[in-house]
Amino acid sequence: MTRDDHRAADAADPLAICRAQFALPAGLLYLDGNSLGPLPHATVAAMTDMVERQWGQRLIRSWNEGWIDAPTRLGAKIAPLIGAHSHEVIVGDSTSVNLYKLLSAALRVDPQRRVILSEAGNFPTDLHVAEGAVAAVPGASLRVVDRSAIADALADDVAVLLLTHVHYKTAERFDMVALTRATHEAGALVLWDLSHSVGAVPVDLTAAGADLAVGCTYKYLNGGPGAPAFLYVAERWQDRLASPLSGWMGHVEPFAFTDAYAPSRGMKRWLAGTPPMLAMAALEASLDVWAGIDRHTVWEKSAALWTILADAGRAAGLECVTPADPAHRGSHISFRHPAAYAIAQALIARGVIGDFRDPDILRLGLTPLYLGHEDVWRAGEILRNVIADRSYTAPEYRQRQAVT
Amino acid sequence: MTRDDHRAADAADPLAICRAQFALPAGLLYLDGNSLGPLPHATVAAMTDMVERQWGQRLIRSWNEGWIDAPTRLGAKIAPLIGAHSHEVIVGDSTSVNLYKLLSAALRVDPQRRVILSEAGNFPTDLHVAEGAVAAVPGASLRVVDRSAIADALADDVAVLLLTHVHYKTAERFDMVALTRATHEAGALVLWDLSHSVGAVPVDLTAAGADLAVGCTYKYLNGGPGAPAFLYVAERWQDRLASPLSGWMGHVEPFAFTDAYAPSRGMKRWLAGTPPMLAMAALEASLDVWAGIDRHTVWEKSAALWTILADAGRAAGLECVTPADPAHRGSHISFRHPAAYAIAQALIARGVIGDFRDPDILRLGLTPLYLGHEDVWRAGEILRNVIADRSYTAPEYRQRQAVT
Repeated sequence: MTRDDHRAADAADPLAICRAQFALPAGLLYLDGNSLGPLPHATVAAMTDMVERQWGQRLIRSWNEGWIDAPTRLGAKIAPLIGAHSHEVIVGDSTSVNLYKLLSAALRVDPQRRVILSEAGNFPTDLHVAEGAVAAVPGASLRVVDRSAIADALADDVAVLLLTHVHYKTAERFDMVALTRATHEAGALVLWDLSHSVGAVPVDLTAAGADLAVGCTYKYLNGGPGAPAFLYVAERWQDRLASPLSGWMGHVEPFAFTDAYAPSRGMKRWLAGTPPMLAMAALEASLDVWAGIDRHTVWEKSAALWTILADAGRAAGLECVTPADPAHRGSHISFRHPAAYAIAQALIARGVIGDFRDPDILRLGLTPLYLGHEDVWRAGEILRNVIADRSYTAPEYRQRQAVT
Repeated sequence: MTRDDHRAADAADPLAICRAQFALPAGLLYLDGNSLGPLPHATVAAMTDMVERQWGQRLIRSWNEGWIDAPTRLGAKIAPLIGAHSHEVIVGDSTSVNLYKLLSAALRVDPQRRVILSEAGNFPTDLHVAEGAVAAVPGASLRVVDRSAIADALADDVAVLLLTHVHYKTAERFDMVALTRATHEAGALVLWDLSHSVGAVPVDLTAAGADLAVGCTYKYLNGGPGAPAFLYVAERWQDRLASPLSGWMGHVEPFAFTDAYAPSRGMKRWLAGTPPMLAMAALEASLDVWAGIDRHTVWEKSAALWTILADAGRAAGLECVTPADPAHRGSHISFRHPAAYAIAQALIARGVIGDFRDPDILRLGLTPLYLGHEDVWRAGEILRNVIADRSYTAPEYRQRQAVT
């Protein structure tokens, strides 16, 4: 494929018009939207309205002018992106905190089932939070197995299977339908972490029959650094599970100010403290960018972009650890190399931002809303050059930073 | 006291210059800064920089350019406002979530002590979260007594005394020094909720010998709606307590991506998920307003403003439920009246924003950074008129809204 071929693909791309909605620095090839999505232009105006009018001018009155419903309103905007009903999703707290809520609740469904089953090498916070959740339930434990052994490890003591749908390092994707079915046949619940899936690959929680899910909104959804996370509970579980973080915003009547806690009906019981309205405003603006965008078109383009980088990596002699079959992967590509950190730094120096994951993974995100075919081809050419001319071996690229 | 007396007090007020730092609507008398502080002008510029430059232009690189240290940097800026050392405070999550972390940890210090003791009528989320925390510890329970009975209820099964320093309804203030001492003599820990204290009354956690504290930053600190909360752990407890919400940001090496959780040393172990950077930027700007402001000057002015409203309430024949002795109260004044809700609405219609707390409390906040003596006197005159002319009895003022 030549540069002209990629230009032709861009000319025919129905998503090409989306690029203008994002404020990306000129000349930068940003392949890290799987870590922190870029700023939508609409967010700038939304933040100004939130800060200067809603907070600055309307002050406390804004709670009755849209703020108090933000967690459910934003949840309803995320629902179509994950195949959920609008009343099954709510926004608030972080992915870590939401994992704790749902894992703690799932451990209390059946006293005979006290095991959280998960994948070795899952995103660390998932396993760390699972450790915290089992520590709060007598007899509970965390069982971690290789991803190939998960189906066989669904023993009759498993309360909940916790899986990250798309792996943060390798981009390997679990078969959500098959594993949800296997989990249910084993009598357990499944909790899907959709942090690397939502806005990237098609997700249909309803079709899969999933029980619980959480996900991050600052990656492919572009909600801003540290944006509030979402939480999904299938309708059939909503009255049977309750949050251990029983804060006032989850109370059935938060403004009755009663001493005793009584959980709200529906998803509001998963709220804890006061919603973070500045962050909610940014996230809402970024979700509105997604309205009207066809998720399957996004995924088809992602697969095409992936192939461009896979070809470049192959030409450079890099080991690709992401599955070649699109059905088995997410929307980033990862190469294993002993100098992966230095390569990532050398790419940044040449205007290509990707990232590094310990110990040896170079990770490049493919985000169809603001990356074109030619962009990704250029990034691939730069990658080939960095490998070919061994410029990554320069000493300055070995200096580790606090956040890698 | 005449209007001229109040004008003279304003002319002599060293805090009068602070008013220009806040963006308050013209003509509005805002006596609800104890619920949601107003917008500092500096926050507007700080948010623009955060959104457009740090996020929009620097993107993921900003994590190494100040973001990752924001929780401890902001904690250090709150520390002088509560008499803490800079390494004893961290910012993140909500007050509710932080309460859960600290209560859960305190319940695990001594297996013979499994009771959370608190005040009946405490702010609801404190009691609600305490219910959630005891549910996760076998044999643990929540004991709630009248505020006058607290010292006597410090039995040898009490793990932690949870008190809100200044009461959200009545503004009654506990004697922090005496109750901390009594708690220690009884062998328990004390956790102070400073939500209605910080930025309002002088607090010295170090001098009191307090163990644990949390607090809200969107009231007197003006951090913005739903701003991240803070959490304090006295240095002597920092290595002995751990968070049940063991997320990756609390890990000793968050970017080593290891499966097993190991808590960070110091305060970082109380972090869970990714810091909410947009909200952190707003909060940091508001904390910088406090730099150089003498807390005792703020409190002296608050006491003077309080007297103005107390006099107006007395003239109007209202029952004041806030203690007359400044040492026993916070920085708001509350009147009990069966039509308190309607009175609050009638005041809003006349440009005075206070609020209502179920079932019969009219609450007016006294915030010396942006309220002058004449402002408060005018609010008092309007309160007197609303009571005298019974305009609050109009039907439109009885219509309850979602958030009261």
